[in-house]
Amino acid sequence: MKIFLIGAAGTLGSAIAAELGERHEIITGGRSSGDINIDLADALSIRAAFEKIGSCDAVVSATGKVKFAPLASMTAEDYAYGIANKLMSQVNLVLIGRGFVSDGGSFTLTTGVLAHDPIRSGTSASMVNGALDSFVRAAAIELPRGLRINSVSPGVFVESMAGYGPFFRGHEPVPVARAARAFSKSVEGALTGQVFSVL
Amino acid sequence: MKIFLIGAAGTLGSAIAAELGERHEIITGGRSSGDINIDLADALSIRAAFEKIGSCDAVVSATGKVKFAPLASMTAEDYAYGIANKLMSQVNLVLIGRGFVSDGGSFTLTTGVLAHDPIRSGTSASMVNGALDSFVRAAAIELPRGLRINSVSPGVFVESMAGYGPFFRGHEPVPVARAARAFSKSVEGALTGQVFSVL
Ligand SMILES: NC(=O)c1ccc[n+]([C@@H]2O[C@H](COP(=O)([O-])OP(=O)(O)OC[C@H]3O[C@@H](n4cnc5c(N)ncnc54)[C@H](OP(=O)(O)O)[C@@H]3O)[C@@H](O)[C@H]2O)c1
Ligand SMILES: NC(=O)c1ccc[n+]([C@@H]2O[C@H](COP(=O)([O-])OP(=O)(O)OC[C@H]3O[C@@H](n4cnc5c(N)ncnc54)[C@H](OP(=O)(O)O)[C@@H]3O)[C@@H](O)[C@H]2O)c1
Repeated sequence: MKIFLIGAAGTLGSAIAAELGERHEIITGGRSSGDINIDLADALSIRAAFEKIGSCDAVVSATGKVKFAPLASMTAEDYAYGIANKLMSQVNLVLIGRGFVSDGGSFTLTTGVLAHDPIRSGTSASMVNGALDSFVRAAAIELPRGLRINSVSPGVFVESMAGYGPFFRGHEPVPVARAARAFSKSVEGALTGQVFSVL
Repeated sequence: MKIFLIGAAGTLGSAIAAELGERHEIITGGRSSGDINIDLADALSIRAAFEKIGSCDAVVSATGKVKFAPLASMTAEDYAYGIANKLMSQVNLVLIGRGFVSDGGSFTLTTGVLAHDPIRSGTSASMVNGALDSFVRAAAIELPRGLRINSVSPGVFVESMAGYGPFFRGHEPVPVARAARAFSKSVEGALTGQVFSVL
């Protein structure tokens, strides 16, 4: 398969590249990293990237940024940041990418455990993760040509605990390689409309 | 209790007014209906409404609009409409209203079954409902002064089947009075961070 992996240079993305790269051709993307420059916050940039690639069999997003801050200080603009940079960025990847993915191909988006297991300062992350998990469930029943869509919802990564540990006390950290296998399940399996929880 | 009920003239809102009005003082709000003019899509209008009311013990939102259309025709702008008019409208009600709700008071927002049980043309509804359900779970653990927040997630109403029936074939319609009781549970009970499913 020819797989377009966005965020391939990140903690999660590099683990996905290692897992899927064993068996497939990976085209990596990022704003300032990878084979193809793509900024998911910019619809024109997404379209330009797909026009360069031509077509592919699977699109995997391992990106997404939100503002982490106490609810007391969160503003509408802070939520708009997460909506633009984790929610609509990945939704736009689907809206634009669907014209470029071959029959039976798939989209796999990244969400996270905070959708249902919140932490302090995480209201925006919870919001956009919940939005994406419900979006994939709904989009799956309307995609044409056997196209599939799933999300992977991992817990905090072992590899990210140095920075994130204080926010995730008591959470069971997940080796990022384990999260990467859920992407393999989504891309190489046949399920659609699923939220693959990796806990 | 003094309860600010937005969308009180609607199908759901009027049932909530009937249920809670038996035991409490209800201040009704809507863009063009009710005691207080309020447009949840406009933060300044929300602030003006709370300044008129002064303070209250519970805020209930029975509003929310999204675009229903086939996924094939949905654009980023169509999702932005639902994000502004069902998701951020209700989140802004919390961000602004929290300064006006008395200690131990509550927010109750409206979502819906499409978060987890999608229909065709419903991707935007699923998205914003899922976002709100996760937001209330997360916001609940950070609200100060014993403030509480829940969402009510009803199935399609018996009273709305004339219009919505063709989209919800096979769904078990819920009498709107039954949905209204979940708002009573949220407002008059002690739970927080819950999604009250009414199916
Ligand atoms: N880390 C965790 O413990 C954890 C746990 C659960 C879920 N997650 C989720 O997993 C995802 C990835 O997290 P991570 O920790 O692996 O992040 P990361 O290490 O910061 O990597 C992010 C990657 O995405 C790229 N990127 C960032 N913004 C982009 C944009 N607008 N368009 C295209 N590419 C962009 C970055 O490359 P460039 O800078 O070159 O663009 C980078 O390669 C996020 O959605 C995160 O919420 C993370
Ligand atoms: N109907 C169903 O079967 C069903 C099932 C599950 C969930 N829901 C959800 O329940 C909620 C209410 O649905 P409904 O069928 O009761 O709607 P509805 O009958 O259309 O009532 C909506 C009410 O909200 C007010 N409103 C609309 N936009 C507003 C805004 N921007 N700011 C303030 N008030 C506004 C309207 O009054 P004004 O025009 O005067 O503003 C009206 O009173 C929606 O979120 C819907 O998704 C409905």
